[in-house]
Formats: sequence, structure tokens, C-alpha cells
Amino acid sequence: MVIYNVTMFSLNQISGSARSGTLQTAHGDIQTPFFMPIATSGAIKGLTTEEIKELGAQILLSNTYHLHLRPGEDIIEKAGGLHKFMNWDGPILTDSGGYQIFSLAKIRKLKDNGVEFQSHLDGKKIFLTPEKAIEIQMKLGSDIIMVLDECPAADKDKKYIEKSLKLTTEWAKRCKKYHLQDTEHRTQNTAESGVLSPVSLLFGIVQGGMHADLREQSAKELIEIGFDGYAIGGLSVGEPNKVMYEMIEKTVQHLPEDKPRYLMGVGTPEDILEAIERGIDMFDCVLPTRNARHGYLFTSTGIVRIKNEQYKEDFTPLDPDCDCYTCKNFTKAYLRHLFMANEILSLRLNTLHNIAFYLKLMSDIRKAIKEDRFDDFKMINVK
Amino acid sequence: MVIYNVTMFSLNQISGSARSGTLQTAHGDIQTPFFMPIATSGAIKGLTTEEIKELGAQILLSNTYHLHLRPGEDIIEKAGGLHKFMNWDGPILTDSGGYQIFSLAKIRKLKDNGVEFQSHLDGKKIFLTPEKAIEIQMKLGSDIIMVLDECPAADKDKKYIEKSLKLTTEWAKRCKKYHLQDTEHRTQNTAESGVLSPVSLLFGIVQGGMHADLREQSAKELIEIGFDGYAIGGLSVGEPNKVMYEMIEKTVQHLPEDKPRYLMGVGTPEDILEAIERGIDMFDCVLPTRNARHGYLFTSTGIVRIKNEQYKEDFTPLDPDCDCYTCKNFTKAYLRHLFMANEILSLRLNTLHNIAFYLKLMSDIRKAIKEDRFDDFKMINVK
Repeated sequence: MVIYNVTMFSLNQISGSARSGTLQTAHGDIQTPFFMPIATSGAIKGLTTEEIKELGAQILLSNTYHLHLRPGEDIIEKAGGLHKFMNWDGPILTDSGGYQIFSLAKIRKLKDNGVEFQSHLDGKKIFLTPEKAIEIQMKLGSDIIMVLDECPAADKDKKYIEKSLKLTTEWAKRCKKYHLQDTEHRTQNTAESGVLSPVSLLFGIVQGGMHADLREQSAKELIEIGFDGYAIGGLSVGEPNKVMYEMIEKTVQHLPEDKPRYLMGVGTPEDILEAIERGIDMFDCVLPTRNARHGYLFTSTGIVRIKNEQYKEDFTPLDPDCDCYTCKNFTKAYLRHLFMANEILSLRLNTLHNIAFYLKLMSDIRKAIKEDRFDDFKMINVK
Repeated sequence: MVIYNVTMFSLNQISGSARSGTLQTAHGDIQTPFFMPIATSGAIKGLTTEEIKELGAQILLSNTYHLHLRPGEDIIEKAGGLHKFMNWDGPILTDSGGYQIFSLAKIRKLKDNGVEFQSHLDGKKIFLTPEKAIEIQMKLGSDIIMVLDECPAADKDKKYIEKSLKLTTEWAKRCKKYHLQDTEHRTQNTAESGVLSPVSLLFGIVQGGMHADLREQSAKELIEIGFDGYAIGGLSVGEPNKVMYEMIEKTVQHLPEDKPRYLMGVGTPEDILEAIERGIDMFDCVLPTRNARHGYLFTSTGIVRIKNEQYKEDFTPLDPDCDCYTCKNFTKAYLRHLFMANEILSLRLNTLHNIAFYLKLMSDIRKAIKEDRFDDFKMINVK
């Protein structure tokens, strides 16, 4: 029984292999390709959701792992969902927690049924199953929900990755089943109560390490199960850029054209341009926010490391081509001073600018695709 | 030769001993009594000057000691002054650095000519004279400049404080002389270049520990020298509130009615009400900003310690009587979550609210004085 619509994703324009389109969610339409700023624990580092909306963010990403540990999905559900809790009325994508369990958590035990791990905060033992991962995300009220997958470490051999893939596919099936049931349940509730429970999209995650054949296998198995969109996980884990781009290509060629494609956790502006050229629609990355806090600022003329002595008496804006609040109101000398003095405002103004840079880049890319001049745009912007 | 106007301070209303009036500065008029949020190093912790203006701040306070050490007054002067550097076009008061030298700096040697101290940042030796303290503040472009004083530790005996007062008065004289000369110099420059150099006000600081006779002596010696306003320093250093209020009374009775009176570094909302009742016009304090960072939030129903378990599932606003951004958009449960998760946004939203609370209090006080009902207002607000 089909209880919700097929993914509302429409392609509007193709420029080479780069695509622009519209993705419909319960909290509004998103123009693709897009970048998702990261609100790990339900907050962008130092910024309000109002500011992030003004900068042109269409969707935020939050982390299931972090929110499950603190404050817990039950509190957020009681608050009326994550949107209301954090005061953001646009779409939200949540990851499944898989990546954080395999990168952040202490001791973990992988079992067929799920994964046992210890919270990095207090050592508390937690057992996460595919079903539980979906349940948490449903409680958060996420618009785009990710399946639970295993993210094998970069140094694992092919045999391990083959085995891991089997588990990931099995978990994806279970996630799909649970998501269907839960959605059906919510839809019935809506019919009975008259209170709308927004419908979420469910995305599968292609794994397979740096092996093109495993990537192909993973993609085909996920398509067989059927998802609203397909993510590529397990890249940008230390491999050379060339290998990453090749893996994107080898995966994308097996993904359906009419579903959105999401490259998880990537990357630099150059990576994003290379991936869009290969047909990717969605991105998230900690780079703009994390780099901002370390004083690495993206500008139209390259990276500015704001602590450098050369900016001590530089009374020009950070990026004359940027019209964000930081660039319109402050000089590099002031930003350097705030950074050196460990002022909280430094984190805020830097983060604001870096996110503005990424969102402007995405907006420029969409425009270039619409005007069928993406190749030229990329050539100018990849040094 | 009088080269600048007498202080433009006019009293508009008196309610008991509480006064409301207008203080004119080169960067605009200020309604008294007022509270100055602290922008220690040229930034309010986590807030923009735009926000602070929207909250109703009329004037900011910055610290000469911090700005001299980092980034240095020469850079700020080259930037076009502190107003431009930090993007604030309202008035700025700067302290002289005296208080920080005696509370923050490492080894210090008091000499007749000035004070030698080591930077708490890098141990660098610095010699600050009364003249230098004024020069720095002039370079910053401050609207209200404070004289250099010695702030004796609370445990010093009367004999020490007598000696210290002699030095403080001597330094005040030298500050006045230097300020006159520098102002004259700048006025000539203005006449020659046609470029206006804003005229600053100079305030003396009454010291004298907890000794009414020394406070009287100090006040009289400063009035003899003649200042645009008079501050009371060296209070709220650990003495009982009753003693502080008594010292305020004993000092105020010797201060001229037609000059603004500034109680330095005080205090709680209750302290402010008690001081205004005793004729004080100006305040600054780290309390609202520092407490905000520690999760102590001022509300119309008392202090909320936001980390408390009781707010875990409290989905009501922090203060229903407050219309600041924090209270309008978030619940106590969310603010608690941000605080527990060490989110930068927590510092920002908490600081915003606490400053909003203080500025609203001052605005309410001014209204109460204008309507000659300050006593009633105070009775309701001091528990």
C-alpha cells in the first residue's frame, strides 16, 4: 500500500551533467543543488535561525547522535518537534547517527541487530537498531530521514567492506520497513485527529569504500528497496580527491535520474563544484563553520587566515565581493583583533561570513546551471 | 582659557533624591540614569553593536587596559577611532585602566610618577602615567574619559588609604592638565583642518575606602580641580551592602548637583535602585554579561539558573514579561539544552536577555522618576 507520495523531485535544467531542480518537503521547497549548514545539537554555532534564513539557507542538518544523547528525542517531541524547539520553520535533514557512532563514540560493538556504543559524553551504553534510528528521527520531526548504515574505517580491506555492505543493505531494508509502518501510523493519526503529521522522505546511503564494483552493488540493492533519495557515504575519509571524484562518478551512473543525490560530509568549494559536475544535488559539511572558528575564512580571492600579522592594520573588508553583515560592517583588522582576543563575537562574525560564502556559491551555481554555463563557472572558480 | 563648553548636563526631573536628566556627548545625548553594557575589548560578549542599540543601550563602556594591550590604541586610532573600529556610533566611556592594573595585572610597582605593571597576557612591562592614560583614551576617541586613580585593596588600613588618596588627587590634577592641553591641541587642529575632532568629557574618581571623611576630602579636592562629572570608585569590593550605600550617601552629599554622578562597577538591580535613590546617574557592571555566560538569568520573577533540572521540559519563555529576541523565540527547555551542550548560541541568547533586562529596568526607572513615583517603583522592585 502506497501511503505517501513519491518523492517530489523535479529537474528543471541540466548543464552538462550538473543538474538543477526542486525538492519538495513537508516544510517547503528546496532549490537544488543546495548546501546544508550544520546545526549539530539543534543550533548553528553562534548564529540564530533567523540569520541563517536571511543568508539564504534552505534547509539545515541536525545530528541524531547528538540530539539523542542530549537533550533526547522525547524532550524534543514534547517541545513540538525540532523545528519548533530550535525556531526554524524550513526543512530539516537528520543523519542516522551511524557516522558519529563510528567516529565519535567510545567502545562500540557491531551486531547483526544493531550497534552498541558508549556515549562520548558520559560513557552511557546505548544500543541503536535501524528501527530505533528511524524512530528517533521521526520523533524529531525531520523532513529528510537517513537510514542507519555502517561506516567502515578507511583502512579496512575489501573483504571487510563486502561484509559491511551486506549489513548496511540489510539495515536499509529494515529502516524502509519501519519508516513505512511509522508513516502509515502517523497518517492514520492525522486522519483521525485532523492534526497534520508532516510526511518525511527517507534516503538510502550507498557505501562500498573505494571499490567501484561494491558501490555499484550497493546502489542497485538500495534502488531495489526503493528510497526517496540516495546518499553517497564513506567518502572524503582521507582518500585522494581524484579517487573521491571517481567514486562519485562510478556511483552516480547507477543512481536513478529522477531522485535527489546527496554527497555526505563534502566538502571544500572545489569538491562541491567537482561533485555537481558529476550530478550531485545535495551537500553538507562542517568545513565553513569549523574553519570559521579556527579563523580560516573563505573569500572570493582565496582563504584568509585572519590571525596573520598582515591583517593587523588592514582596514579593508574581509571580502569586498561579499555583502554579509561581517563584510559590510567590519574590517580585517577588527576581525583579527576579535580572533586574537578570543572574543565570542569573533566566532559569530566568522561563522556568519563562511556560511554566507557557501550559500552564495550554491546560489551562483544554481544560476549558472539555469543559464547553461556551469562548465565556464566551474573553470573560473576551481583554481 | 576655556576651550570647550561646560558639561552639557541638565536635570529634568527629581523624585525624592532620584534624578533624571540628559547628558550631551560628542556622539549624542544620553538620558539619565543609565547603564553601560561592557565592551571590554571593543566587543560585547557575543553581541553586535546593532543588537545592543536595538535593546536600547545609549552608551558602551570599553576598557583602556585591555585595548592598550590588544590591539593597541595606535591601531584603533589608525582605524578611525574605537567607534568606527567596532561599528558603534553612540557614545563610549573608557575607564583609565587603573582598576584593571590593580586587579588583573601581574607584578606592579606604584611610583609617584605612575604605575609599572606586567601585562596579564604576555608579562610585558608597561609604565602607565596619568598623562599616558589620558592620551590612550584620546586616541581611542572616547566620549567620556576617566582619570587614572589608585584602587587600594579592600584590606588596606586608613593610613594607606590616606596616602593613596594623595596620589589619586595628584594624578587627577595631572590628568586634567593633560586633557586640557590635548583638547586645546585637537581644537586647533579642527580649526586648521576643518575636520572636527570630537570633544571628550573628563570625569574625576572619588576614592577614600570605607571612610566618610576621606570620601569627603576626595570629593572636595576633585571639585577644586573641576571635572565634567564625578565617579565613585572603590566600592562593591566585598563590603556589606549597607556600608556601600552609606558611602554613596556620604559622597553624593559633597558632589555638585549640576554634574553627572557615576557609581563604578555596580551592581545588582537592587544595588542600582538603592544608588539611584541616593542620587546616582550612571552605572556599569559585568554582572549581566558575566552571569549570562554562567547561566544566571535575570527575570521579572527573580534569577533563573537555567541549568536546573526543573527547566528540562519547561516549554515556556524565560520571562513572559520580556520582549527580547530570546524570550520571544525560545523556551527555557531550549535555553537549558544550549547551555548544557556548551553551544555558543547559549552565551549569545543569555547575554542578549540579561542586557535587555538591565536596559529595560533603567528605562522603567527613568519613566518612574519622570512620573515622580520612583519610591513606589523601588519598593515593588527591591525584594
